[in-house]
Amino acid sequence: MKIKSLFLLIGLFVHVLVLHAQPPRGPIVVSPKVNPDKTVTFSYLAPNATTVLLDGNQFGSANVPMTKSEDGVWSITVGPIKPDIYPYGFKVDGVTVNDPANTYLFPNERFKGSLVEIPADSPAIYALQNVPHGSITYDYYPSVEGSTGTVVVYTPPGYNQETAKKYPVYYLISGTTDTEETFWKVGKVNLILDNMIAQGKAKPMIVVMPYGNPLARIAEQTGKDKPSDVMSRDGEEALKRMKLFEADLITKVIPYIEKNYRTIPNRDNRAIGGFSRGGGQTLRTAFNNIDKFAYVCSYASYISPTEMDKSFTNITSNPTKTNKDFRLLWSGIGTEDFLYKGTTEWEAYLKEKKINVKTYAIPGGHTWMNVKQYLNETLPILFK
Amino acid sequence: MKIKSLFLLIGLFVHVLVLHAQPPRGPIVVSPKVNPDKTVTFSYLAPNATTVLLDGNQFGSANVPMTKSEDGVWSITVGPIKPDIYPYGFKVDGVTVNDPANTYLFPNERFKGSLVEIPADSPAIYALQNVPHGSITYDYYPSVEGSTGTVVVYTPPGYNQETAKKYPVYYLISGTTDTEETFWKVGKVNLILDNMIAQGKAKPMIVVMPYGNPLARIAEQTGKDKPSDVMSRDGEEALKRMKLFEADLITKVIPYIEKNYRTIPNRDNRAIGGFSRGGGQTLRTAFNNIDKFAYVCSYASYISPTEMDKSFTNITSNPTKTNKDFRLLWSGIGTEDFLYKGTTEWEAYLKEKKINVKTYAIPGGHTWMNVKQYLNETLPILFK
Repeated sequence: MKIKSLFLLIGLFVHVLVLHAQPPRGPIVVSPKVNPDKTVTFSYLAPNATTVLLDGNQFGSANVPMTKSEDGVWSITVGPIKPDIYPYGFKVDGVTVNDPANTYLFPNERFKGSLVEIPADSPAIYALQNVPHGSITYDYYPSVEGSTGTVVVYTPPGYNQETAKKYPVYYLISGTTDTEETFWKVGKVNLILDNMIAQGKAKPMIVVMPYGNPLARIAEQTGKDKPSDVMSRDGEEALKRMKLFEADLITKVIPYIEKNYRTIPNRDNRAIGGFSRGGGQTLRTAFNNIDKFAYVCSYASYISPTEMDKSFTNITSNPTKTNKDFRLLWSGIGTEDFLYKGTTEWEAYLKEKKINVKTYAIPGGHTWMNVKQYLNETLPILFK
Repeated sequence: MKIKSLFLLIGLFVHVLVLHAQPPRGPIVVSPKVNPDKTVTFSYLAPNATTVLLDGNQFGSANVPMTKSEDGVWSITVGPIKPDIYPYGFKVDGVTVNDPANTYLFPNERFKGSLVEIPADSPAIYALQNVPHGSITYDYYPSVEGSTGTVVVYTPPGYNQETAKKYPVYYLISGTTDTEETFWKVGKVNLILDNMIAQGKAKPMIVVMPYGNPLARIAEQTGKDKPSDVMSRDGEEALKRMKLFEADLITKVIPYIEKNYRTIPNRDNRAIGGFSRGGGQTLRTAFNNIDKFAYVCSYASYISPTEMDKSFTNITSNPTKTNKDFRLLWSGIGTEDFLYKGTTEWEAYLKEKKINVKTYAIPGGHTWMNVKQYLNETLPILFK
């Protein structure tokens, strides 16, 4: 009888082990937990740590001490927090780490933040809603200098069904140290478009998100030392990177996309936009390739008047032509963005030169919370 | 003259700032750096840390002390390391963190490891090579209990061009705490298939990678507390999750895929496979739905003889029929896997019941290095 019970127990144990296929561990941590009152409870398992702080400065919770329970789980409830998507981490005995209980990570080459979404009372334009959804596709393509490039592509709802329909294309470039994943995983451009298309507010379009730093990729693939790197402060080096990006986009990415997706391949149906370094790449690529793009969106970036005077008189010398060429030239910036001053100076420069530029300034810094608002403003006016 | 120089300097500074659009930071860390002799140099910036260890036990470098340079960068060179893709992290004053200089992360719900690939002398079957590439697509679909599901889909090279061709489908389910991204980002099933298709070794196929834990997703979307959780050790609860997964796959995922992709929608052109918990889900789903799948692959998983006797006499009572039904029943395991004993017992049980099972045992543990070898064995024999 005792032996039988033992066998039964062993049987049950093996059974459960196979269902889960991992050895037992410590207490289960659920983090972050967004509460109905929009406070958020963050938790982190670290029985042996001396201090654990919540590192959430973008929602006003910079270095908030957390408290430890008997089972070694540190936690803190903060807020209510204004609905949005924010990066955060923990400082464990002085070391910044992401949240191991959370799969929602910020794709970035320099920092590894976790992300938390605080839902709004009525769903935000970037929220996952019960509407027809487009798809996100990861492609490899033959890129510059024999390298293999990576690009992420949004196709709108119905793309797989309406197999004769062709679409305009928005080329969208993320910022320094971001990756080709950032515009959808953090910027939510796919869900914003799903919702806008469902509401009839935006035209169905394809969005193409390339990786912004092909020089680093080439170095990696050729086994050369990775150039040290995205943060180089050498102006010449930075311009060389910019030209390489432009060559990749114009001679490799666009032909690949137009061969493999159902696009309308002309300038009136191509837009280009980007954030931060991607905004700088956007403006230079658009100004160097007027035959390629009719819509241009700069999210928190600019070109200095000095560089404009030196390199882009093709844009400023004939404002009537420029204003006809660009069906949209758009510039958005946060008033607390560290590039606010430069951006507004550039906007003033353009206006003085009689170039039509649609400007947009809102509170906020150089953040992806702001980028979602720039998307919200610009996506409805593309290709119209 | 001095004023002019100052203005020039300011101009240059603003220019470079905009190109990079981030304020200056500490020294640039390149990590990991794979050296030509297959040693790897890992680096981590932490000027104030007391001890930093390399946490790379899967390549024989568990808790190796790193040394600090004058600029606060800790580093260590280890190896040579056998070519493969390995997870690793750092232990900074006792806290495990991933590598902030590395975008290649292990998608997982519990731990956040970084990944390093040590290339083989002649490219491994999972290496990015200069061959035609398929695409990876992230889709949303209407899932069980009104939730919105996420699924990742591989389409083979040429899928977008040969628009009349239809393909067989491999449903591939990742392990406990893995996500729907793990089979391509860590398992490299897309690159393995690209290479095998280029070599004529595997049939062009679609691979569908669902998320394995719909109960957690439903809880998240309905605002219920996330059940605590994937590590529940309650057998009843685990079986309930298993049934929910099965309902999601059979009644939601498969119809969605067959509506939106060019599939051959019959059992002879459907395979199912999975690793760890995903292997358990594979076997139970296949045995409960004999009309749906002709090819079944279990990667490091099994069903206990007790459960087989209780729940799956439909499989064991008529071996002739079962052996005709399943064109492939495949079981692979590592000899150091903690599920090795259970798996081999299950294989012996099947053989005793005269069920044809193709078995495969290799050195190694319950790891994704082994999973790539299981893929390497099984992908060439599917749909043949």
